[in-house]
Amino acid sequence: MFKLDPAFHQTAFELGKLDLSIVFLNNEARYPWVILVPERDNIVELIDLSIKDRLTLLEESCLVQESLKKLYTGKLNVGYLGNICSQFHLHHIIRNENDPAWPGPVWGHSPAVLLKNDEKDFKVSEMKAILGL
Amino acid sequence: MFKLDPAFHQTAFELGKLDLSIVFLNNEARYPWVILVPERDNIVELIDLSIKDRLTLLEESCLVQESLKKLYTGKLNVGYLGNICSQFHLHHIIRNENDPAWPGPVWGHSPAVLLKNDEKDFKVSEMKAILGL
Repeated sequence: MFKLDPAFHQTAFELGKLDLSIVFLNNEARYPWVILVPERDNIVELIDLSIKDRLTLLEESCLVQESLKKLYTGKLNVGYLGNICSQFHLHHIIRNENDPAWPGPVWGHSPAVLLKNDEKDFKVSEMKAILGL
Repeated sequence: MFKLDPAFHQTAFELGKLDLSIVFLNNEARYPWVILVPERDNIVELIDLSIKDRLTLLEESCLVQESLKKLYTGKLNVGYLGNICSQFHLHHIIRNENDPAWPGPVWGHSPAVLLKNDEKDFKVSEMKAILGL
């Protein structure tokens, strides 16, 4: 049975579910950052997914990427590591030359700067609306 | 017309071409690291590719991921940043708990440790063989 690592709800806000994935907005004020977690058992690598699920994940990831580019200017960084939380999750982050980690990666750069309540409410609503959640 | 950023041949060895992508082995002794560059003009983001090319890239990426997992033990890190070299390229890296950047990302961690000639010849042959190049 699918079991979500509790780390996701500790560090991110659940926006809803697409056909395959649970969608999270990471609790980070400095970078627009959406995470997809496919709702499947025991997935650590992308290639642990069935071919059908890989295709659905690609579609859902492209929807997230297009939505982030509609809402924000900047460069997308998209990928999965899973070195700390091994449950497969795909990061989508908007980057800019004036962000604190540029041009390096955001992962491991510095502790999260958390969203304030009003920012959180706005960003959660905005992302849910554009993703149709 | 497609034009490859010269940075790729300065930092990696070309292994050959799949249907869509040029395949490179990054010149880095500490991590098995394969890069795919779709041979298409003016691609910065994955979503700049046509739907058909996105599907081909997914297939080619999964082939690289499966090949790396056959040859090496460890965790895959897969993604694209493009913050420094903006021409779209997809990284595939095998990570281990005893590698120098673990559990952080390898990008930006430290200067490359270059492959020695005999290592390079072995790893290039090995990857070409498993990818059918």
